[in-house]
Amino acid sequence: QAGIVSTEGPDLIVRTDGGFGVKTADNQFSFNVEGRMNLDTSYSSGVLNNATNDKSRTDTYVRRGYFGVTGTAYKDWYFEAIMNGTADQGGTSNFEWNTLFVKYTGWDAANITLGRDVRPFGLEQSTSSGAISTIERAALYELTRAGDTETSQQFALGKGYKNMSWGVSLYDNGDTTTSKNTRYGYDGRFTYAPIAEKNEALHLGISLDDANIDQGKYSAKSTLGAKKSDGIVFATGNFDSDRTGLLEAAYMKGPFSVQAEYLYRDLKSADAKTVDAKVSSYYIMGTYTLTGESRVYKASAGKFANINPTSKTGAWELVGRYQHVKADQGSTKDADVYLLGLNWYANKNVKLMFNLQNITTSNVAAENRDDSGKSAAMRLQYNF
Amino acid sequence: QAGIVSTEGPDLIVRTDGGFGVKTADNQFSFNVEGRMNLDTSYSSGVLNNATNDKSRTDTYVRRGYFGVTGTAYKDWYFEAIMNGTADQGGTSNFEWNTLFVKYTGWDAANITLGRDVRPFGLEQSTSSGAISTIERAALYELTRAGDTETSQQFALGKGYKNMSWGVSLYDNGDTTTSKNTRYGYDGRFTYAPIAEKNEALHLGISLDDANIDQGKYSAKSTLGAKKSDGIVFATGNFDSDRTGLLEAAYMKGPFSVQAEYLYRDLKSADAKTVDAKVSSYYIMGTYTLTGESRVYKASAGKFANINPTSKTGAWELVGRYQHVKADQGSTKDADVYLLGLNWYANKNVKLMFNLQNITTSNVAAENRDDSGKSAAMRLQYNF
Amino acid sequence: QAGIVSTEGPDLIVRTDGGFGVKTADNQFSFNVEGRMNLDTSYSSGVLNNATNDKSRTDTYVRRGYFGVTGTAYKDWYFEAIMNGTADQGGTSNFEWNTLFVKYTGWDAANITLGRDVRPFGLEQSTSSGAISTIERAALYELTRAGDTETSQQFALGKGYKNMSWGVSLYDNGDTTTSKNTRYGYDGRFTYAPIAEKNEALHLGISLDDANIDQGKYSAKSTLGAKKSDGIVFATGNFDSDRTGLLEAAYMKGPFSVQAEYLYRDLKSADAKTVDAKVSSYYIMGTYTLTGESRVYKASAGKFANINPTSKTGAWELVGRYQHVKADQGSTKDADVYLLGLNWYANKNVKLMFNLQNITTSNVAAENRDDSGKSAAMRLQYNF
Repeated sequence: QAGIVSTEGPDLIVRTDGGFGVKTADNQFSFNVEGRMNLDTSYSSGVLNNATNDKSRTDTYVRRGYFGVTGTAYKDWYFEAIMNGTADQGGTSNFEWNTLFVKYTGWDAANITLGRDVRPFGLEQSTSSGAISTIERAALYELTRAGDTETSQQFALGKGYKNMSWGVSLYDNGDTTTSKNTRYGYDGRFTYAPIAEKNEALHLGISLDDANIDQGKYSAKSTLGAKKSDGIVFATGNFDSDRTGLLEAAYMKGPFSVQAEYLYRDLKSADAKTVDAKVSSYYIMGTYTLTGESRVYKASAGKFANINPTSKTGAWELVGRYQHVKADQGSTKDADVYLLGLNWYANKNVKLMFNLQNITTSNVAAENRDDSGKSAAMRLQYNF
Repeated sequence: QAGIVSTEGPDLIVRTDGGFGVKTADNQFSFNVEGRMNLDTSYSSGVLNNATNDKSRTDTYVRRGYFGVTGTAYKDWYFEAIMNGTADQGGTSNFEWNTLFVKYTGWDAANITLGRDVRPFGLEQSTSSGAISTIERAALYELTRAGDTETSQQFALGKGYKNMSWGVSLYDNGDTTTSKNTRYGYDGRFTYAPIAEKNEALHLGISLDDANIDQGKYSAKSTLGAKKSDGIVFATGNFDSDRTGLLEAAYMKGPFSVQAEYLYRDLKSADAKTVDAKVSSYYIMGTYTLTGESRVYKASAGKFANINPTSKTGAWELVGRYQHVKADQGSTKDADVYLLGLNWYANKNVKLMFNLQNITTSNVAAENRDDSGKSAAMRLQYNF
Repeated sequence: QAGIVSTEGPDLIVRTDGGFGVKTADNQFSFNVEGRMNLDTSYSSGVLNNATNDKSRTDTYVRRGYFGVTGTAYKDWYFEAIMNGTADQGGTSNFEWNTLFVKYTGWDAANITLGRDVRPFGLEQSTSSGAISTIERAALYELTRAGDTETSQQFALGKGYKNMSWGVSLYDNGDTTTSKNTRYGYDGRFTYAPIAEKNEALHLGISLDDANIDQGKYSAKSTLGAKKSDGIVFATGNFDSDRTGLLEAAYMKGPFSVQAEYLYRDLKSADAKTVDAKVSSYYIMGTYTLTGESRVYKASAGKFANINPTSKTGAWELVGRYQHVKADQGSTKDADVYLLGLNWYANKNVKLMFNLQNITTSNVAAENRDDSGKSAAMRLQYNF
């Protein structure tokens, strides 16, 4: 004697898989509720905490607390409105729109996006934070403002094909001139996948960014994957030009994948006190799925999605990563970061991650301070 | 082989049209998810930015980021909980409840509202920000505290009829006395529509407000429709009485409408240094829908709703508005604001708006500062 | 000619009762949207506002504005993500995650919780804020840090049985050591119900907490149920040990219930200037439902849920409560708080509450200040 569920318009299809979605059977309209929890605990020591006397530090915090909706109206008008509420130990939460944009998909030549969205820049950044293989993305994304994409609005064009994708963006760079005019930076990305099969993929990509700054104080600073540490400033000063280039490559075969990116950032001094700075960084990461699943590659977006566990007990993934950071600003600073990681994909929704890092630096630590460090982190992720 | 969707209680009716809704077929219970994005870019110059040396200014920002739910329980208990997350260039988002109220509709004489809701005051304010014909409402709503309705709670009574509506409100005015008691202002509105047809409407209305202030520093300031400009202070000082009256009129026939409101605000000085202030402002706005649609008038609420495009290519609307502001406080300040606007209603959900303004003032600019100014703005609106 | 609503996966069951829920018929997946509004107005006077010259104070404010989702994936992975947006008169809203956790229920011995959730401590705190019989919980929950459970993350184990429940928690206590390490406190609770019938219940419980502080400035402060008053500081200083014990008891028969809790907190001084402090507090509360309904007791969680009105005109409940607070820190401070309350449960979703309090203190007020006070409060609650 179940009650009847009907609709007054076109036929509807409903789903729940932790989240919720409904769409019209004619694909004209859709609506989804989505979210993601990243509950993290992290540890850092040594050079990572030079600013606080090398003391070790542990933190338990909400790294991401996404919640929001996506939908489509009249087939071609897609929107996304996902907020992010984060919280540190003892502090209050901070809510902001993580994404808030409209995308028009009715034009053949390109999709048109207006609003707050991830910009077209880099392989790992294009990959959702919920689908990366390490707890934090590679340091190179912190070392460029091109990586700080979540708080700016953009006007973007882009398109995906069977083996290729491209995107260009004009974005509010968050700066203002002295007369308070918003300044707009621009960036772009092109990816090509000579191989794009379910169990084998070869990815190549290039990204460019000109932050189009007027002048002001900028830094290249990174926590080297230890999110709540003091972090390391590799370059800083008053600059009036900020340009970045990035190269991407990845190869995946069966349960094995290797992925690498190289970034070069050029900062031009705006005054006599600041020395021009050149920051470069690369990483190479290898992953191996002990339970045999392949990572999921999407050639039309030039990115990876999460592993889908085939077994009821989930999937296990081993991760190794080496990163190098080099900064020339008068003197030369270097850092090497070694990571070992283990991920358990309990099911499509739940993922448990463990990362250990060993860090060595030269020319980074102040006198009498530790020039090496360690970090560890654990994450429980729930996608709905 | 589609799966079955059923319910364990009364029959349900589901809808999606970008947003989502479900209700029981007996109309006892309902639930809706709603939101609105206003993605704006604006420009201002001259007198609007006197405080920053007349410099021109551009901004890209999230003007509104609404998201929330509405619903009904036991037929007569309606609620609304819509948050608003806004964001400026480079700044973080700010989230607050835009509306958060309970309305009891089971009493014949009046609906009873408790909570945070738009107060009964003025035609354009009663009209949803998603349905107004210009990007920003007329300046007169900034020139009175009666227009600042979104951050206060109220206890309100009101009712709509076929050709008439009324509402009265007792509201937390956001002030406190020296002993920290909340102070409560009151306002009310009455509207009458001699004509209320689908293609022709004549609207008349009157609104009154007493902010019931004790004493304190208050201003009558407006950005004259250029939201991110410095704006202009027309009157300021230490006052102990703050009363406002407003007259409304609108006529619509076919694709043509004209709408006007007149506001008068009386501020009484609370000390020897402050001069009594009288601020008045009116606007007259004309709209013409090039594609022939009429605006949608709701006589039972004394307000307008959005145009529904009849063509697949959407509806186009031309808008012209003239505003006058006058403030007497010792000397007399004047401002005239001319607006030209063009709106494209792509469909029920999406609206693109363009506004150009020319502003002249007298007795407003500081010496050696520009006494005229310009502004322009663009908005992409998505309702779900 | 209603449209068809179907699904592409397992059969679904949908419900709306103000909020919204959908689950798979096989109970593997579920998703719910929930919220709660607490719209309060309160008054306080005398000793409660010593800090502001005993002046009386009224406030209208959003005490709670909950909104969020809960759900299940793969049967055993439950999550909750409920935000809370509060707002004072004239101020902006503040949003934070009220709960944000993952609970694994697939292990027979215990449920495992990670994230932000109410901790296992006390009868009234385990009872939802939407189901308590007075507007504010007893003062004893403010007098211990064990009661401040909403802003910390925890790792918890717990389980409910037919007549019994237990829970233990290791929690981020919001403090940091000088080297910025998070510190973790621990607490636990055990409840037993010799009687757990629908119309009769006897509840016994014990809770223990060690905040595991290093050292720092801590206070035992309470507003004694008058939320927006200045409140009273019963003990304060620099402490390095903070332990609390609590005893719970409740008996319910038909429309009548009586409930009592006793708390003892021991604070050890960390320096020569601070005297050791001992704070104790208890309350005894009686309720009588004029319309005959029983309170709803859940023995497997050791808590109460809301009364379900049986009549169309709702249920009426009378409440009386006596609280005593005593603090020894060199001298002895005392407070007695008498409360009279009336609640109207309009239906399952709507509840209207009225509270009056009379307060007497000794050794609390500064010289020439009032040592007694009054408070009153009103709440409109809407659950969806």
